[in-house]
Amino acid sequence: MGIKMRAWEKNIRQVVPYTPGEQPKLSDVIKLNTNENPYPPAPAVEEAWKSMDISALRLYPDPKAEALVGAIASYYGLSEDQVFVGVGSDDVLGMAFLTFFHSDKPILFPDITYSFYDVWADLFRIPYETPELDQNFCIRARDYDKENGGVIFPNPNAPTGEAVELSFIEDVLLHNQDVVVIVDEAYVDFGTQSALPLIEKYENLLVVQTFSKSRSLAGLRIGYAMGNQRLIQALNHVKYAYNSYTMNMPSIMLGVKAIEDREYFEDITARIIATREYTKEEFRKLGFAFGDSRANFLFVTHPKYTAEEIFEYLKGEKIYVRHFNSKRIKNYLRVTIGTREQMEAVFAALRTWISSKEMRTD
Amino acid sequence: MGIKMRAWEKNIRQVVPYTPGEQPKLSDVIKLNTNENPYPPAPAVEEAWKSMDISALRLYPDPKAEALVGAIASYYGLSEDQVFVGVGSDDVLGMAFLTFFHSDKPILFPDITYSFYDVWADLFRIPYETPELDQNFCIRARDYDKENGGVIFPNPNAPTGEAVELSFIEDVLLHNQDVVVIVDEAYVDFGTQSALPLIEKYENLLVVQTFSKSRSLAGLRIGYAMGNQRLIQALNHVKYAYNSYTMNMPSIMLGVKAIEDREYFEDITARIIATREYTKEEFRKLGFAFGDSRANFLFVTHPKYTAEEIFEYLKGEKIYVRHFNSKRIKNYLRVTIGTREQMEAVFAALRTWISSKEMRTD
Repeated sequence: MGIKMRAWEKNIRQVVPYTPGEQPKLSDVIKLNTNENPYPPAPAVEEAWKSMDISALRLYPDPKAEALVGAIASYYGLSEDQVFVGVGSDDVLGMAFLTFFHSDKPILFPDITYSFYDVWADLFRIPYETPELDQNFCIRARDYDKENGGVIFPNPNAPTGEAVELSFIEDVLLHNQDVVVIVDEAYVDFGTQSALPLIEKYENLLVVQTFSKSRSLAGLRIGYAMGNQRLIQALNHVKYAYNSYTMNMPSIMLGVKAIEDREYFEDITARIIATREYTKEEFRKLGFAFGDSRANFLFVTHPKYTAEEIFEYLKGEKIYVRHFNSKRIKNYLRVTIGTREQMEAVFAALRTWISSKEMRTD
Repeated sequence: MGIKMRAWEKNIRQVVPYTPGEQPKLSDVIKLNTNENPYPPAPAVEEAWKSMDISALRLYPDPKAEALVGAIASYYGLSEDQVFVGVGSDDVLGMAFLTFFHSDKPILFPDITYSFYDVWADLFRIPYETPELDQNFCIRARDYDKENGGVIFPNPNAPTGEAVELSFIEDVLLHNQDVVVIVDEAYVDFGTQSALPLIEKYENLLVVQTFSKSRSLAGLRIGYAMGNQRLIQALNHVKYAYNSYTMNMPSIMLGVKAIEDREYFEDITARIIATREYTKEEFRKLGFAFGDSRANFLFVTHPKYTAEEIFEYLKGEKIYVRHFNSKRIKNYLRVTIGTREQMEAVFAALRTWISSKEMRTD
């Protein structure tokens, strides 16, 4: 910018500036770019919202967020000291990096994965290595045998949607018993088996989930980790050293209501899974290629058309999907699964475009 | 605990475990221990709450929290790039420590001050020194002339309630032009002059405030910093490297409503100030000593009775005040200013107790 650096600026922590993804502000947009749930939250959320006493907002919330921790523990059959909550799973994962990854040995995560792992590692000056996914975008267990300071990967992975079996996760755990292994299950509720049952056996396993996708509460910022009591206690110690009160009162109260409604949750996730299978079929008909996604998005590529041109066309049609500009995946688009109607609109638009492209090449 | 340390535990960041203050769960408690506002939030907060569309909670909030940043900027006559928001001023201050205090020279803050400064310094491995307040619990400007990596103090100070003039703050700024100076104004709205006008002149000055006290929204977790554009940009860079979406949708929306109602805010703060002056009078009559508090609490001590015995007695009467067990201040109690009725109940209880104590010594 040409402004001379001030003396106080040399004490500023240097980070690579990050700009969040585009947030379209138009109405009537089909927003399929941040994996939000297309359905509203559980009905009890609205009921609780309407009956809340606003004057209570003058009080500090419960620093332990006990009601929410208890509701999550109860839902998953855990004790409360096995559950940690935070301001979205980003806060939970960031806090986990700060808490658990303090070795001079590098932590390990895939080269293609959730975009924040390297950001947190850089922020907290944690060394890391990124073993490559294979050519089918699958994680290779043997890449995680080497000595390391910690392991983290999403299951299913982002933005590929590819999932691994529990036997794979146990394999990684058995080869990494001296470090913390984090399985990021942001997208687990759409047909992947959770690693949660393994926390009784593996005390170094941390499972992280969120209310932002399957529970339609991205706006409330609720994430959680589940693991053995000592892991959770370590997280809490660091959390209390940063901010006693992270969870605001509405998020605690409404999060409880959302997680209590198992029936609504199962109905919604089943609908999204069904729409995903429909979506796969339609993409297939149009010549797209994609992996076996177990998430609420698909990761698609087309042999004839670049991801960028498809992205721009859809954007012109007020349909927002996600594109990542990094080398191995820049010819893919990540498409969130919306409602059936929204997906039908996407394919109507794509059919029109592809037809017009093919007419020109005839 | 006697459990053998596991190998993965050696990679855990060591912090001193912190337990948040006691949170009484009884109803009919007079809660004067965390400086909450005794009055409800501005009326427009409730109106907005009632008219909110719950289905919107399925969407991620604005990562830039533009509506809230804009409302704060507008209220204070600033541009939006001079305002940063976070999850309570604890998040803002913690983020400021992480962002600005990276020198090998110690940062400086008073020995008696807000209890989190040393906690953050320890968490982020920042060296620090704590010059002593004088015997009247006042900050001495000359203590902040020495070379340092940064300066932070509350104004008014916590838990003393003592405030300094703008000329004092300018003195400190002039002697510390090469480091960031943070003035923590959590309690500034109860009769202290804000340092905000100085941010145009001193680009290394960061002013931090909160919605938790004067705006009756502790339950929503809203804090903010104001400073020159480069300071705010540095904060945002680090914030985006940790969590894109810190501010949840209700907090953004309702924070806007709260800050827009200048009239309600001025009425409420005037009432609390008036009740504080009444409270001083009553404490004086009972023989308590205290400084000139400009906050929404008083910091009191009694020549004849220990803080601990008064604390326990009041607790037995379901009146919760705050006691700090550190050496210089363990014979003081911090008493939040509640409603007039609440304070009358406090003094009725104290008069009863003191009378009974004095009868026994006759």
